[in-house]
Amino acid sequence: MRAIVIIRERLGKEILFFDGAMGTMLQKSGLLAGEIPETYNILQPNKITEIHQKYIKAGADIITTNTFGANEYKLKDTNFTVEEVVESAVNIAKKVGNGKYVALDVGPIGQLLEPMGILSFEEAYNIFKRQIVAGYKAGCDLILIETMSDIYEAKAAVLAAKENTDLPVLCTMTFGKDGRTLSGTDPLTMVTILESLGVDALGVNCSFGPKEIKGILREICNYAHLPIMVQPNAGLPQMQDGKLSYSLKPEEFAISIKDIAQMGASILGGCCGTDERYIEETVNLIKGMKVVKTCAPKITTLCSSSKTIIIDEGAKVVSDRINPTGKKDFKEALENEDMDFLLNQVVEQKDSGVDFIDINLGLPGIDEKGVMVKAIKEIQGIINTPLQIDSSDSKVIEAAVRVYNGKPIINSVNGRKEVMEKIFPIVKKYGACVIGLTLDENGVPATAEERFDIAKKIVDKAEEYGIPKENILIDSLVLTVSAQQKEAIETLKTVRLVKERLGVKTLLGITNISFGLPNRGLLDRTYLSMALAMGVDAVIINPMDKEAMNTVYAYRVIAGEDIGGKNYVEKIVPSKDKYKPEIQGKSKSL
Amino acid sequence: MRAIVIIRERLGKEILFFDGAMGTMLQKSGLLAGEIPETYNILQPNKITEIHQKYIKAGADIITTNTFGANEYKLKDTNFTVEEVVESAVNIAKKVGNGKYVALDVGPIGQLLEPMGILSFEEAYNIFKRQIVAGYKAGCDLILIETMSDIYEAKAAVLAAKENTDLPVLCTMTFGKDGRTLSGTDPLTMVTILESLGVDALGVNCSFGPKEIKGILREICNYAHLPIMVQPNAGLPQMQDGKLSYSLKPEEFAISIKDIAQMGASILGGCCGTDERYIEETVNLIKGMKVVKTCAPKITTLCSSSKTIIIDEGAKVVSDRINPTGKKDFKEALENEDMDFLLNQVVEQKDSGVDFIDINLGLPGIDEKGVMVKAIKEIQGIINTPLQIDSSDSKVIEAAVRVYNGKPIINSVNGRKEVMEKIFPIVKKYGACVIGLTLDENGVPATAEERFDIAKKIVDKAEEYGIPKENILIDSLVLTVSAQQKEAIETLKTVRLVKERLGVKTLLGITNISFGLPNRGLLDRTYLSMALAMGVDAVIINPMDKEAMNTVYAYRVIAGEDIGGKNYVEKIVPSKDKYKPEIQGKSKSL
Ligand SMILES: [Zn+2]
Ligand SMILES: [Zn+2]
Ligand SMILES: [Zn+2]
Repeated sequence: MRAIVIIRERLGKEILFFDGAMGTMLQKSGLLAGEIPETYNILQPNKITEIHQKYIKAGADIITTNTFGANEYKLKDTNFTVEEVVESAVNIAKKVGNGKYVALDVGPIGQLLEPMGILSFEEAYNIFKRQIVAGYKAGCDLILIETMSDIYEAKAAVLAAKENTDLPVLCTMTFGKDGRTLSGTDPLTMVTILESLGVDALGVNCSFGPKEIKGILREICNYAHLPIMVQPNAGLPQMQDGKLSYSLKPEEFAISIKDIAQMGASILGGCCGTDERYIEETVNLIKGMKVVKTCAPKITTLCSSSKTIIIDEGAKVVSDRINPTGKKDFKEALENEDMDFLLNQVVEQKDSGVDFIDINLGLPGIDEKGVMVKAIKEIQGIINTPLQIDSSDSKVIEAAVRVYNGKPIINSVNGRKEVMEKIFPIVKKYGACVIGLTLDENGVPATAEERFDIAKKIVDKAEEYGIPKENILIDSLVLTVSAQQKEAIETLKTVRLVKERLGVKTLLGITNISFGLPNRGLLDRTYLSMALAMGVDAVIINPMDKEAMNTVYAYRVIAGEDIGGKNYVEKIVPSKDKYKPEIQGKSKSL
Repeated sequence: MRAIVIIRERLGKEILFFDGAMGTMLQKSGLLAGEIPETYNILQPNKITEIHQKYIKAGADIITTNTFGANEYKLKDTNFTVEEVVESAVNIAKKVGNGKYVALDVGPIGQLLEPMGILSFEEAYNIFKRQIVAGYKAGCDLILIETMSDIYEAKAAVLAAKENTDLPVLCTMTFGKDGRTLSGTDPLTMVTILESLGVDALGVNCSFGPKEIKGILREICNYAHLPIMVQPNAGLPQMQDGKLSYSLKPEEFAISIKDIAQMGASILGGCCGTDERYIEETVNLIKGMKVVKTCAPKITTLCSSSKTIIIDEGAKVVSDRINPTGKKDFKEALENEDMDFLLNQVVEQKDSGVDFIDINLGLPGIDEKGVMVKAIKEIQGIINTPLQIDSSDSKVIEAAVRVYNGKPIINSVNGRKEVMEKIFPIVKKYGACVIGLTLDENGVPATAEERFDIAKKIVDKAEEYGIPKENILIDSLVLTVSAQQKEAIETLKTVRLVKERLGVKTLLGITNISFGLPNRGLLDRTYLSMALAMGVDAVIINPMDKEAMNTVYAYRVIAGEDIGGKNYVEKIVPSKDKYKPEIQGKSKSL
């Protein structure tokens, strides 16, 4: 049996020990400031061998190759290719390891991605791909993507690993004192994105010492369903005799790592400042301990790179305004690829208080895929509201989901087999959420039971693709009440059936209801309130309709989501009603 | 076994034949215009005896005493007392009958009741009581209240019969060409009121011939759960040789009566123009036929004397404005018994489109009972909107319900034993609906399950009193969301539990929800829509809040109650929203 199968079976089932720092050890053995550590794989292989030997002796189950910065950007001023450096590093580790697992170390590129830097997502992907393919060819057993401070970069690395190897992929990020990574990702959002991308384990490394890391770890344990990995520094850094050192002794470090294991982390090791003594103490203290199970709930999440929306925590509002249908200026802007127009619209939506924004740029005659990718990149650069990718073209959807820095929701599949077969592989691969419309080749059925049957077919088919039902939102389709009057209530009944019988989330586009009748806003907000009462999880509305937004704010007070009505009092637009109740809360004569 | 027990067992189980007209027969035997027929009981008893004998020979199971007008008003210019006339009539019939049932005939007083006439309800009651008590003492077997054209008068007669005898009470009314009685009662409303008063059989008599009566009978069959009685005239009246005669021959009459029996009537006889030949033909044709079962659904109804509200047919709106709490001018008006003020208020409520109106006149220091009775009488004289009788004093409730010309709803009972024991006997006796509040000696419970338990307790206790669950509406109590935030949703959940598990109607007073928060109307109408979505059957709101009423109108379109939105388009107040949807019904990209 190949090592990768064995390690996948062991991850999360038993405590596994990684090694400690490579850099710290190299400095001790003479690495000078300015020297590129990865060159040692070729220039001083014995020193690397020694370090691995020490960690193996200390009890590590997995050793990490000296390839943290072995990418073409960091090696560009050396005389060595990525392939030479990586192959050499893996060979050294494999020779020493002799049965131990060898993890290909993949650190940040050292160049910021767009929009903060100049590196495009696909450029980053290609850099990681080259490093990872080299390691894979050389025979490493798993890929460790670590010390990531930009989740977008981590996504590029994970995709490169998943698309070009069949190896287990572990990914850990480094957090700052504000509990976020440098680029603003919080632990929940990291978990959301990395789980959606299908890594094998995730966690936190570097950051601080093991004590300080616990707050972040607690968040991770609250949400992660995967094995959790932690590699802290040897305490907080301090200057001693003009030299950087770390605050914890090996025994202290080991005690804190034991606490970390008791919180639920099962893949343990050290980062900056740790050496073989830290690993040895840790292994000695913890060895034989059973993995502590965490019990994160199965929730439905969407996120940008810095904001996660938990659908389970009350009804959400989706903007449907980013859509050219019926809008002359919007169409012109798309034809001219006028991103400023689009961004202004998006910011307006965001400011109106929506939870996520549907992006539909479908217009005959334009390069929808190109415009969509460009738009997604621009939008995620200026707002952190999660996005809903809306297209009837699966190629547009895949390109958008790939470039999206977060976990999006795809709009949509329906009960048609060929649609599901096109879209579900994308949903699965990128771990996105997806909207399932209750229609099929025969159109939209009239009754709730028939619509439920389509919803069930969608959920069942998704399961075949390994898509969990948390990632599905069923849209039971609001038709206009003036044309199909009886179906207005059937749509709402479907919401209840889907929630009760399938335990699946629901979404409704509200404003169709009122087409053709006067005072559309009145019908919209009445239907909106009714849908909310039936437990719909997300509503697509025009957030520029202040009365509709007010209705949502009022609902959130009633539903207890807005504790004490604080948000309501802040947000509601003053009423235009002439009616003022003359009695202040007449109490019933009980 | 007494005859009354036997007849109760036979009513509705087998076809029973009454006799035909008394007046027609008396005219044939020489009664002159201007003579009072009831005097014949004393002056010409043999003629009455003969008539009874003919009908018995014709096959009648029940003969009717010659006491149609034997009341103190009609007999006031004779030398005979009511008691003399009635006793004599019953004795004649009993002597002739010899085993046949003797029905005490009770016709209209001949004097209109308030507000159309000058006779008060209690005066009418006393006139009927005197006639009925005389018949009861003389030994009649049942009471037939017939040819009633004012349901209020019928109510007085039925109460007089029920309160002063234990005899079966049958009541039939006479209808005009418009399908209503002279005082405006339609067949459904007649059924509603007579069933609520606990008669043993009900139906239609006189009116037209048997063919023309079928439309009215069909309505009665659609709604009545009691044995149905029909005594038509011998066809339509026509002048022949300067003499009034009726259009049908006995055989024709009998054929039409058979049709009537096939529609579901089981107590059959004749009115004006019929004689022993009509009864004989009818008996011969129908005898041995089985009773045709009707299958009126169990529905929840309220009514005034001319308008019935079927609660099952969509959500109803109740006005809560007729209430002095917090209203200085209202309090002053009550203290001065200023009925004009009250009536203006009531008319305003009616015009706002409510389905029924809560009347609460509780104010310390006033004669609540006296004011309530006066108010009910005045109100029912000017509007036909059904009323909800709201008082914490059971004496006030009983007085109001008694004088009310319709089937009211009583507000309220709750889970307290002593409250139910005071109110349920009134509910049962007058067949009213009643609101059950989900609170008891421990106050209002926090959760839906606990409130449901109280609702169940109320429904079970009501059953012990013989109150059907159709006559109960559970109010799961809206508290202010600013004070008891979690309970806002629990109240709505209770609505669902009560409807699903008990099959009982629900009602909610909406406006409490918003107390203490800004923009109360917004919270009110959002909660209102949610309550409607949860299936609440009636909502108590302030109908002067146009947006709340608009919300109800919008709901009725959505729920399919307002077919094609016709009422919506007529009724809604133009929106004050600035928002105008820019897209006309964007259709989903399916
Ligand atoms: Zn580190
Ligand atoms: Zn008649
Ligand atoms: Zn008659």
